[in-house]
Amino acid sequence: MSNQKRLVLYTSPTGNGRQVPILLEELKLIYGPAIDYEIVLIDRKKGTQKEPWFLALNPNGKIPTLVDRAQENFAVFESSAILLYLVQTFDVDRRLSFDPATHPKDYSEMMQWLFYVHGGLAIAYGQSVHFTELEEEVPYAKNRWLTELERHFGVLESRLINRKYLSGPGDGTYSVADIKAMVWAGPKMLSRLGVGPIDKWPNVKAWLARIEERPGISAAEKALQ
Amino acid sequence: MSNQKRLVLYTSPTGNGRQVPILLEELKLIYGPAIDYEIVLIDRKKGTQKEPWFLALNPNGKIPTLVDRAQENFAVFESSAILLYLVQTFDVDRRLSFDPATHPKDYSEMMQWLFYVHGGLAIAYGQSVHFTELEEEVPYAKNRWLTELERHFGVLESRLINRKYLSGPGDGTYSVADIKAMVWAGPKMLSRLGVGPIDKWPNVKAWLARIEERPGISAAEKALQ
Repeated sequence: MSNQKRLVLYTSPTGNGRQVPILLEELKLIYGPAIDYEIVLIDRKKGTQKEPWFLALNPNGKIPTLVDRAQENFAVFESSAILLYLVQTFDVDRRLSFDPATHPKDYSEMMQWLFYVHGGLAIAYGQSVHFTELEEEVPYAKNRWLTELERHFGVLESRLINRKYLSGPGDGTYSVADIKAMVWAGPKMLSRLGVGPIDKWPNVKAWLARIEERPGISAAEKALQ
Repeated sequence: MSNQKRLVLYTSPTGNGRQVPILLEELKLIYGPAIDYEIVLIDRKKGTQKEPWFLALNPNGKIPTLVDRAQENFAVFESSAILLYLVQTFDVDRRLSFDPATHPKDYSEMMQWLFYVHGGLAIAYGQSVHFTELEEEVPYAKNRWLTELERHFGVLESRLINRKYLSGPGDGTYSVADIKAMVWAGPKMLSRLGVGPIDKWPNVKAWLARIEERPGISAAEKALQ
């Protein structure tokens, strides 16, 4: 008998790396032991993610990357694609996602916000950190990305006026779109970047507080230690 | 009787703006007049995409944005989310996509490459163009993005060895993942950026030639004039 877990997640405790553990812990609270995973922490400074064995799983050489041992070691890369694979496989009651076949518009809305964060907010955040922490001063690029990051918080704020969550009918339903976005809104890092304070965007602040009180969030922090 | 088209696409003849017309023309070749759309060209230099009427459709203020008049003017933003909405709505025979319910692994693979391009290749391309065409010299940022763009062509090359298309079983099936990626691989712009030549990546070059001979590509160019 093997004690191997079904899912292996290669990740790190970064914005991109935290999304999937949060979803896994949220799924575990709903579906219990069917959500059977282990985390392998990757030291990005060592360049483990560029080693041949890792590139065979993910040719882009980045964390997170997931392997599903129950599906002939099917490998999934890109944080957002992993979130989708997990809800597609495990969220059969659609508690954290929408069914594309029966709720196509809700599914599309969730996808719109997933892609928006994936190619917008997350990039602006990552580049803002890069140019803020860089030894060399590159004022143009630093200012470009910090301005863009502020703009994105304005976009989120406009979306969250009169809404509880980013996508879904009525005032919204908590979904992977919110998990995707919330990891970039932590007020500590924003203040390190000189962006905010988050009180400038009261609806973003309330949305973040609403999500952070969920037990899945703290469980994911523990899993990443 | 109204002659209004079902779909309105707000777009521009850019990399992000070309993907959806290509898909619409490909769908038209398969499904005929059911694919009923008009293009409204947006002059981004005028800032039309930041006007209140546009922000009501897309709070991020970017092209492309789609409106489906047959679905109570349902608005879809983010190029990749529009591609997905269109195949979900119209590609009933799954000729350019995969069914998440019956082919979850193929669907996931397509999503992985969609997200990879959306948050990786497309960003590196856009930033490379920005810093190459900028009057102010910002050597660090320019070099950062051009290096990243070269790296992405290496990722595509490694994927396309022994494959015809980015996702799908066997040597792959043409899908929206390929449409998403091909708009960034045109050798003319690469040479303007000093990246390449594309002969450095023979499998990318062959893949691009395979796609460019499809009649949907030239039809989309005409539709954007």
